[in-house]
Amino acid sequence: MNTPGQRLARGTCRHLHTHGFVCLEEVIPTPGLRVDVMALGPKGKIWVVECKSSRADFMADGKWQNYLPWCDRFFWAVDTQFPTDLLPPDTGLIFADDYDAEIIRMGPDQKLPPPRRKSITHIFARAAALRLQALRDPNHLSLRI
Amino acid sequence: MNTPGQRLARGTCRHLHTHGFVCLEEVIPTPGLRVDVMALGPKGKIWVVECKSSRADFMADGKWQNYLPWCDRFFWAVDTQFPTDLLPPDTGLIFADDYDAEIIRMGPDQKLPPPRRKSITHIFARAAALRLQALRDPNHLSLRI
Repeated sequence: MNTPGQRLARGTCRHLHTHGFVCLEEVIPTPGLRVDVMALGPKGKIWVVECKSSRADFMADGKWQNYLPWCDRFFWAVDTQFPTDLLPPDTGLIFADDYDAEIIRMGPDQKLPPPRRKSITHIFARAAALRLQALRDPNHLSLRI
Repeated sequence: MNTPGQRLARGTCRHLHTHGFVCLEEVIPTPGLRVDVMALGPKGKIWVVECKSSRADFMADGKWQNYLPWCDRFFWAVDTQFPTDLLPPDTGLIFADDYDAEIIRMGPDQKLPPPRRKSITHIFARAAALRLQALRDPNHLSLRI
């Protein structure tokens, strides 16, 4: 386990699994934009979770609104010490630690347009399979992820 | 590395990566049907590859035609010793070994209907992400794959 943000992501991914969502970390839905956690639900819903370990970490993120067009619901994942008053009220909130998490507030369901859902699901599928292939076949040097 | 079929799959997956396809092994597109390799292309094409290590292995497979509705193209992956005359002529053929492979013959492009492509891509995405999550977070016992 590495950074505080990655530890929040681990607990978040574990918890979202109990909601039937599978998760992928550090997904690039479009060049220049990287989301901490992208989750794909049993019926195709896409949730995005940004993990913020501190006030400074949150304040440095000037582009979170750019994530909104890439998900049905958007969440922040923070620990219980985080000053949640900072967070915009119309976004989702998850309390997480290294081991688990809990959804405190659901963000609004924005309903992705079908072509974008298709495109995100495709990107998600390819990123997940490529990383899995790289882990399963580490000696195959031409796999770059 | 395990069975001869899994070794053919490894070489096949490596090779399909050079065609821009990402691969996932042992995918269940619908209950009761398991394909050896499912590959997802850069523009969303789905290829299915069945790996056959011997004549007996091929002869025991009475249901390969059930795979056809789940892919744009269907291939057999065999080693160069395999009696390829056994294989139906209107299917794709890949020669594979543990390390690489080569496409010898492309099967016909059947063009999946869009709803089925959507459904397969979704299944592929969830299976890949779940397996990746289980490898990255092996202590999380509730992950069953």
